[in-house]
Formats: sequence, structure tokens, C-alpha cells
Amino acid sequence: MKNANNSKLKIIPLGGLEQIGMNITAFEFEDSIIVVDCGLAFPEDDMLGIDLVIPDITYLKNNVDKVKGFVITHGHEDHIGALPYVLKELNVPIYATKLTIGLIENKLKEHNLMKSVKRKVVKHGQSINLGAFRIEFIKTNHSIQDASALAIYSPAGIIIHTGDFKVDYTPVFGDAIDLQRFGEIGKKGVLALMCDSTNAERPGFTMSERTVGRTFDNIFAEHRNTRLIIATFASNVDRVQQIINSAYKYGRKVIIEGRSMVNVIGTASELGYLNIPENTLIDIEQMKNYPDEQLVLITTGSQGESMAALSRMAANMHRKVQIKPGDTVIFSSNPIPGNEKAVSNVINELSMKGADVIFQDVHVSGHACQEEIKLIYSLVHPKYAIPVHGEYRHLKAQAGIANSLGIPKENIFIMTSGDVLELDEHSANITGHVPTGGILVDGLGVGDVGNIVLRDRQHLAEDGILIVVMTLEKYSNQLLAGPDIVSRGFVYVRESEGLMEEARRVVEGALDNCMNKHITDWGKIKNNVKDALSDFLWKRTKRSPMILPIIMEV
Amino acid sequence: MKNANNSKLKIIPLGGLEQIGMNITAFEFEDSIIVVDCGLAFPEDDMLGIDLVIPDITYLKNNVDKVKGFVITHGHEDHIGALPYVLKELNVPIYATKLTIGLIENKLKEHNLMKSVKRKVVKHGQSINLGAFRIEFIKTNHSIQDASALAIYSPAGIIIHTGDFKVDYTPVFGDAIDLQRFGEIGKKGVLALMCDSTNAERPGFTMSERTVGRTFDNIFAEHRNTRLIIATFASNVDRVQQIINSAYKYGRKVIIEGRSMVNVIGTASELGYLNIPENTLIDIEQMKNYPDEQLVLITTGSQGESMAALSRMAANMHRKVQIKPGDTVIFSSNPIPGNEKAVSNVINELSMKGADVIFQDVHVSGHACQEEIKLIYSLVHPKYAIPVHGEYRHLKAQAGIANSLGIPKENIFIMTSGDVLELDEHSANITGHVPTGGILVDGLGVGDVGNIVLRDRQHLAEDGILIVVMTLEKYSNQLLAGPDIVSRGFVYVRESEGLMEEARRVVEGALDNCMNKHITDWGKIKNNVKDALSDFLWKRTKRSPMILPIIMEV
Repeated sequence: MKNANNSKLKIIPLGGLEQIGMNITAFEFEDSIIVVDCGLAFPEDDMLGIDLVIPDITYLKNNVDKVKGFVITHGHEDHIGALPYVLKELNVPIYATKLTIGLIENKLKEHNLMKSVKRKVVKHGQSINLGAFRIEFIKTNHSIQDASALAIYSPAGIIIHTGDFKVDYTPVFGDAIDLQRFGEIGKKGVLALMCDSTNAERPGFTMSERTVGRTFDNIFAEHRNTRLIIATFASNVDRVQQIINSAYKYGRKVIIEGRSMVNVIGTASELGYLNIPENTLIDIEQMKNYPDEQLVLITTGSQGESMAALSRMAANMHRKVQIKPGDTVIFSSNPIPGNEKAVSNVINELSMKGADVIFQDVHVSGHACQEEIKLIYSLVHPKYAIPVHGEYRHLKAQAGIANSLGIPKENIFIMTSGDVLELDEHSANITGHVPTGGILVDGLGVGDVGNIVLRDRQHLAEDGILIVVMTLEKYSNQLLAGPDIVSRGFVYVRESEGLMEEARRVVEGALDNCMNKHITDWGKIKNNVKDALSDFLWKRTKRSPMILPIIMEV
Repeated sequence: MKNANNSKLKIIPLGGLEQIGMNITAFEFEDSIIVVDCGLAFPEDDMLGIDLVIPDITYLKNNVDKVKGFVITHGHEDHIGALPYVLKELNVPIYATKLTIGLIENKLKEHNLMKSVKRKVVKHGQSINLGAFRIEFIKTNHSIQDASALAIYSPAGIIIHTGDFKVDYTPVFGDAIDLQRFGEIGKKGVLALMCDSTNAERPGFTMSERTVGRTFDNIFAEHRNTRLIIATFASNVDRVQQIINSAYKYGRKVIIEGRSMVNVIGTASELGYLNIPENTLIDIEQMKNYPDEQLVLITTGSQGESMAALSRMAANMHRKVQIKPGDTVIFSSNPIPGNEKAVSNVINELSMKGADVIFQDVHVSGHACQEEIKLIYSLVHPKYAIPVHGEYRHLKAQAGIANSLGIPKENIFIMTSGDVLELDEHSANITGHVPTGGILVDGLGVGDVGNIVLRDRQHLAEDGILIVVMTLEKYSNQLLAGPDIVSRGFVYVRESEGLMEEARRVVEGALDNCMNKHITDWGKIKNNVKDALSDFLWKRTKRSPMILPIIMEV
């Protein structure tokens, strides 16, 4: 594949490092752009009230004629979650494997986009042609089925993008990762490898998903007389398959609980990714017809999410399942960083209700550890390394691995969102930067909550608000009514009547001052009131509530 | 020790399980009460704007004549932090070892209580008599020096309270835990053991603090050419000692940075708990006089606390230290549950600035693991087990250990705050409950922020506030001015002018409605306005901001 006119390939992450989870990367060659993945990020702690964060696709909209489609590596939220929002602004076709398309379609249905959006199922080993690009889907393993690496053939060279992956020689469903193909393409000469960095700090090799099945068998064998409740990720179909296998072996009926899990398992089952023996799955309503020792519930909530099924059970707020002494609850998951405390709270609540909680060694990661990353590098042997997926520390850890395998430091690129990397077989350089960012979604509002609103929410959350209302006479500025002070989130007023009365007098004093100084400008009056009240409250309480003076004119 | 009149001992935790960190337990026998520890809890995530949480000591105030004093096990915040607040309401003497009293005095000075509060230094091996009780201080090991277990001799029997502890056969400073004395008292017959549960889920034995010293030596040896920055807990004097030892060995000057660390190290050094070779410690101002490879900074911020020194360095907000490529930053700590994400963010920021970050295996816990807990049970051989210190899951894990060592389940008590356990050699029962709780401290306000205020802050944080102001004519209720709508934390108004204008019309409609229906009651008018606006906003935005109608009368 020769590059006739010496054009270079551009690689532009439109999310990622600044918004972990918002995986979306544009590949541009002359008049063709393809976009790999379109994920969403969950809000940071300081994004109060925000539901989710989606990518700013201004760059794609400005180049709409070039954009040939989305190529999706697998069906996790951080790779498909922003699609329904983005497709409303940029309607291009979607290409992915069968289960991935199935999960995307669940979203398209919710957003009423089934008719307007084109999509095409691609099989592993197949390629699609999109403008200047050919994209080959390569079988990998991950914590969801049908995950793909992509070989992106461009006139400037071949890029291998692993997506999220691990090497599982003995997967629960389907084949192991197609290492041969990685090697074969590597032999042809690969320009750049974009490899999953999530576990790049962890030495060794991620265990096979199948090992968890053996753990389940042991747990089922040791807990023959109690009800089993197993929490795991809604999308981990293989994990659910293994629980079903153990349940069948030990004569238990299986109940699936939690909306997202019911959805994913439904889709996976319809599409043939799950093998459920007859009469094994029962509805939650039938639970009462079976003794505890013949039941296993598979549920959402393994991350301590407050509205998920397990958390509701733990808090005694689930309408159909009550935790009781003797129940055995298994967390088949590790807490995602940031969720540790929430998970621990749920474990405490379950323990207090007498449940026996198992939370160690019932999980394996879906991401490659250091030895697997080295394996992929050794098969692909890229000229350039572009670590992807993970926080900065993880990308840096992979950069270290790449360097240790002989890739010179100047050929390794840790890219931040918006960086434009131009590369071909002769050189690679960051040559520019396009606008990117996270767009906040709050309820139905997309992008109408920005930094000012968030700052206000933070301020309100810390110290509450005092509203000072005054009615002034037109022209004379004579005080006709008020000042009334109303507070929310500041102090419990009944306990602090004296303070609020003093505050009122401070405001009156500030207004008198303005009158005496012939200050008539409302802005200035408001500022005087605000400053006086703010000083008073800080001295008395060491707090700085938001102060909002409102003047009414009659 | 015979109990003549058959009175029982009462053990009453006034904090603990509901407020992790608020360690305070009353021991009552007839007309004597002693209180072990007086800690504070840090606010939970949903306690917006709260600085800290202190115990409700109503029970002690109601029995003020009985209270003989506070007996403190060691100088950590979760054991001494609430003292200055509580002493203002209940001035009784404090008994503790030298370093512990030193750290308490730092607090008394801040709160201007040095003159009014009595305190007495007790040595390990010594006893004090307080009413019906004799309390013996027993040497233990922990992540702060001078930690004590307590043997509490009462007419009803002996209680052993371990405080926070580990078994360190080779401590950095002073002696190992006095296991002989545990055995000796155990031989006499111990009624109940109250043992630290923090690590009761962890198998094995906590490593000696001295092992960290060897790790430091290795790190110093491997990083001879870069500046070293080491973050650890401000109160871990032995850790600081070991860093100083390595620094001296490798010819580096030491700088202590971070207010709380400067305080603790100053106190420990004055009292002789720290051995600093001459010319080793330098002031941060002198840093510029030394090349990087001759410097080591010991700093606060190992938990990613946003205002701590290391976090400020990572965020480029520290006035005296800039992180630069080549710096080696060492986290000599593990994240406390809940801090994982904050720590990770700091690691990312440091990595982005080119620092090499080491965060694995440079720490050992200060708490006993399962084998150490078993050791203490075996030496003390108590009739009753009362696991203390830790979340419910940890207390339950220790209950399991106690049971496995032969203590029958009915003799094991997991107590919640306020439970009254009455016990003697014949029986032990929860016989009552006294009022307890966490009192929220926000700025100077102690207890003036309660659930209503917190709920308001949560609501404001999620969705912001809309204030609707209307001036009505007296008697006629005719609208004279407004309705004006002011919002904060809801939407960015410039982007949503249309929405706000519609909202104003909704309010006008609601007011018209009230007029037409001859509704004149202000409360009803406000409710009508609120409901109409709330419905409108939910339909349009799927959000529920706080709505605050204010009526002014002229």
C-alpha cells in the first residue's frame, strides 16, 4: 500500500484522557474520516447533578462530508454510550459485530433512532471499506463478548487498535483472541499500535474467565443450604453464563434482577450468546415457589450504585427481595476506582442483615496485564506506540513497557484529547489541536449546564444560600417592604433566630448607608448589601453562603 | 476483686459503628463513669459542607457528677479529635501517655483550653484510680508512638481494651507490645476483650514498621540523582524517623512540609520521640541552596486531600515546590477507603508533570491482622468478646475469629452506638439504649446544621434553585411587581432565555388562577406557584430544582 501523494494519516482522540471513559478517536486521511468508538464518561465528583458526559464533536461536524461512519470495538458504555446523542447531530452509519450492534440497537430504540440510523453487522475476519480506509475486525477477548481489535489500513500505513482486550486462551464462549492474525499483520509491517493500557501497571497475566467458573462451582458446593445472590456487571454475559452453568449443575433456579442486566442478558440470549438450559431461568415472581437452597439471584449493583437492585435489597428498599440471615451474597466484581466506599457500605448493610458476604477472588479482569501487552507488542511490532484506554498513569506505564521492548521514546505518544498526530512511515508528530471537551447531560438538557452553573451548585452545596429581598419605591429608592431574608441550606433557622435577626439589621444598616451616601444604582446597592452581610456571616460563623440580593420596584 | 452488691458494669459506646472514627466509649459502674477516647468522624459524602462530626455527649452531661475523666489510648484524630469540643461542655481531666498528651495539648492551645483543662501523663505499666475503676496503661504498637491498651479493673471484672494496635516485634522506637502483661492479666481472668477489628478481614500478620525502612534504603540507593518527595501520614513519627535515617545515610537534607506534619513532628521531636541528626533538617526556604540529589521532602497529602501540600504541588499551586521531570514521588501510605480516586488523581497529575511515582509496597498497616488478633485472644482468654474499631464488616469478621477460638456466639457482642451492655462474670446483656449521634460542625457552628439543612444542600447541589419574587398589594393581593425569577445552579440563563421567559408566564398563569379562584392565603398562593412551575420544569427539562416563592407586601 503506497502513499502516492505523501499525505499523512491523522489520528485525533476526541475524548479519553481528560474524560476517562469517553473513548472516541477520529482517523483522517485526506477526504476520509472514520471514528472508532463513541463512549460516555460518568460525571466526576465535582459535577454536581450531572447524569453523564458526552464528547464535543464540533470537529466532526465541521468535517461532516468526510465522516464515513462509526466503527465500534465492543458494546460497553464507555465505547457506545454517547452514540444516541452524537447520532442526533451527525447521522452516519455504524459498523460493529453482532452483539455490539444488538446493544447499540437497545439504545437507538430508547432514543427513537432505529429508522434513521444505518448499521451493519461485521464478522470477525471481515473487512469494510470506508473512503480511503479498510477496517478489519479481529477477534479478541474481553469482559463482554464479540469484542474486536481493529486493523485500520490507510494509504499511510496500518494501525492496529486493540480496543479493550485480554488474552483468554480458554474463553467461556467462542474463540480465543486471534493472535495468529495479529502476528500475520505484524509481519506485513504495522505503522502504529494503539493498545489498551487499563492494567498496564499490573505485572503478569490476567487469568482466564473460566477460572471464575471453578470458583462458582466451589461456592455452590460449599453453600448448599442457603440462598445465593450474586452481583456482577450487567454486561458480563460470560460471567452470567458460568453462574447459570453452576446453578444447573447444583439444581438451582436462576433469577435475573436489575433493569440493565435484564436488558443485556435478553439481547445476548436472543442473539445466541448465552446458553440457558430449559427450566433454569425463572421470573422473580416465581421465587416464592422455591425453597432458598434451590435459588440463585444474579443481580446488578456490584459497584454499590445506589439505585441498583443489590443496593436496594441491602437498604431494605427492594420490593421483591428481602435480605435475611443465612443469605450468601457474592460480589463477582472488583470496585472500579471511586466506588470502593459505596461497595463497602453495601457490604456493611448486607452483613448487618445477617448475610454472609463473599467479595474476594470471585472476579477476573477483562483487561490485559503487562505480559499480555508485551505479547501484543511482540506480535505486532509497531513502529509507533500510542497507548490508549486508561488514566495518565496507565498510559505512562504502557509507554514504559513499549520502551522496554525497544520502541524509542520519540516514537511513543501519550495523546491528550484534541491532539492531532500526523504520521506515516517516515515521521510522526503532534501537529495541531482541535476543540474537544465533555458536554454535560443533566436530565433532558445537553450542554445547558456549564462551569458557571456547576460552580454555583458547588457553592450552594457547601454553604447554602441567603436571599435578601427588598421592595424599593421607584425613583426615591425608599424601602417599602423588607428586607426579608430567606435561607436554604445555611443554618436551621429555628435554632438560629437571633443570627437571622442580626443579619436583617446588618442589611438595614447597609441600605441606610447607601441612602446616606446617595447611592441609587441597584447594582451598587446589591453589592453593598452582599458585602456587609458576607462580612458579618463570616465573622460570626466562618461560613460563606451564597448571598443573593433581589430588589423589587413598585 | 469481688463485687459485693452484685452491681454490673455498663459499657456504652457513644460513637463508633454509626460514625466511623468517632471512638468514644463510656464505662459505668455505680457512681463512676470513665470515658475511653474522644474521636471525631470525617463527614460522609452526603454531609455537604460539613467539616467534621463530633459525638453527642448528652448521656455524659446528664451524668456529669459521675464522670471521672477521659482515658485516651493514642493521639490519632479518631481518638482525640473531638476533645476540645467536648471539653467545653464537660470539663473533666484527661489521662494519657506523654506523646498523646502532647498532641492533645496542641489542640487545647488552639481552642484556648490550656488553663481550664486538667491533664495527667501516665506511663506504660502505671495505673490510675478513677472512682470505682483502676486503669492500667499497657504498651502496644501502632502507626503512632505511645499507643496504649487499657486494662480496666472494675468491681465486676477486668476489661481489656486494645485501642488501635499491631504486634511489632521490632519497632522503630521503643519497645514491642507488652505481650507478657496481656498474658499475665489474662491468667487472672478477663471479663471482656475489646479488640481492634480494622484488619480483621485480612489473613496473616502485619509486617513490622522496620521493613518500610529497608524499602526506603533501597529507594534511596536506586534514585541517587533525583529529588525525592515522600508523602505519608502526618502522625506517623516512626515513618518520618526512618526517612530521616535513610536521608542521613545517603547524605540528603530533609525538609518537612505541610502544617499538620510540621506540628506533629515538632511535638514528637520536643518530647524526645524522634532522633534527628544535626544538620539534617533544613527549612524549606533553604531548599534552593542544595542540588536535587541532596534533598528529600517529607510531606502531607498521601490521601490526595485537596488542600494538603502534595496535592498543591501536583496541581502547581504550591508556593515553594514545583514538581519537575525527574522528581521521584513516593506514596508511603495506602489510600483509606473512599480516598482511592483522589489519590489516583494526584498520581496522574504528578505523572503528567514528568515525576516518577512509586506507590506500591512502601507502607505497612498500623493495625493487627487475623493472626495477631488470635494471639491477643489467646493471651487474654476473655469470657466475652466485644469487637471494636472498624466498619460492621470488620467487627463481624472479628466476631468470626472470636467464635473460631471457642468463644460462644452468645458471648460475642457487636454493639451499635448507644447500646448499654451490662455485664459481670455471670451474664452479659444489652439492657438499654442511650441517646447518641453525630453533631455536625460547619465552620464555627456546632450543631446548627441538621438534616433539613443537609437535605436542602443536597437538593441545591443536584438541581440548583429558582427564586420567584412577587410584590403584592396589601389586602387586594394585586400584583404590583414581578414575578421575577432568579436562578442559581439550574441552567446557564443566557443559553436558556426562552425557558426562563416561559417559566415567568407559567408563574403569571398560576397567579391569575389564584385571583380567579379568590385564593388569598399566601401559603396557598406560594404552593400554587411552586406546583405549576415545578410541573413545567420537569416536563421541559426532567429536572427538579428547588423552587422558592417569595411574596413581598406593600
